[in-house]
Amino acid sequence: MTLNEINNLVKESGVASIGFLDKDGNPGIRRVFCTWHKGLGGHFISTNTSSMHTQALLKNNKACLYFDNCQAFRCVCFTGTATVHFDHEHKAMLWNEGDEQYYPNGVDDEDYCIIEFQADHGRYYSYDDIGDISTDELAEYDRETEFVNYAEK
Amino acid sequence: MTLNEINNLVKESGVASIGFLDKDGNPGIRRVFCTWHKGLGGHFISTNTSSMHTQALLKNNKACLYFDNCQAFRCVCFTGTATVHFDHEHKAMLWNEGDEQYYPNGVDDEDYCIIEFQADHGRYYSYDDIGDISTDELAEYDRETEFVNYAEK
Repeated sequence: MTLNEINNLVKESGVASIGFLDKDGNPGIRRVFCTWHKGLGGHFISTNTSSMHTQALLKNNKACLYFDNCQAFRCVCFTGTATVHFDHEHKAMLWNEGDEQYYPNGVDDEDYCIIEFQADHGRYYSYDDIGDISTDELAEYDRETEFVNYAEK
Repeated sequence: MTLNEINNLVKESGVASIGFLDKDGNPGIRRVFCTWHKGLGGHFISTNTSSMHTQALLKNNKACLYFDNCQAFRCVCFTGTATVHFDHEHKAMLWNEGDEQYYPNGVDDEDYCIIEFQADHGRYYSYDDIGDISTDELAEYDRETEFVNYAEK
């Protein structure tokens, strides 16, 4: 797979699986909506502050983000770190009409936050191909990209 | 969700996501076929010995196994340990017609192995419900169960 093909997989996914370490150091997985991407390596996820994965990532920022297209047997697992944002700017940027059903107090609801995942490197799989994406390749591919919400594309 | 509803989710999934720790202690995720189950907590996965997740689990057996039904928004994440089996008995039990395309040397191909995941506890999510499955609940539910291949059901 080329980096452009992997980027298409990411943009078309809409959801991803985030991997984290729980308080005992065990791996955990949660499925999350993930439509905001900055090139290949940068991803925003809006979620609950109280969720176990958010609390785990606040204590240990090691994370991975896995996108797959089961129909086409294509997937990519990015390894990196997660930063949890509580500021109004990030929360307003990712707010969607109707999110009041999840966060009754609106954009500044304390249970609403934004996880920013930044990939360090990755590994992709397709039916006829396996390969690594290096830190340098990610940096070069993502140079001069901005965060875009692909749910609106 | 009741334990029976979670068991149905597991049996109907066919695939799961396995979480592991890579050589640097970062979480990783791979999608795997998973049709052999023993109650809620026991699961067999046939895979490549050379795969990164197999090699990682041989060094660190901490793992999680995540089943989801995106359509119905139901999912469960089991936390536990993985044991990698290389004996003929396990490999023969999980061998499927046509697996020669993946393992040209047949059942005893050195690149073919069986991961046994055993859950210690779990956490489930549905559109209207979140809860934990304790170690005791798993042991009680799985008492007197045997491994069954639900791909044949």
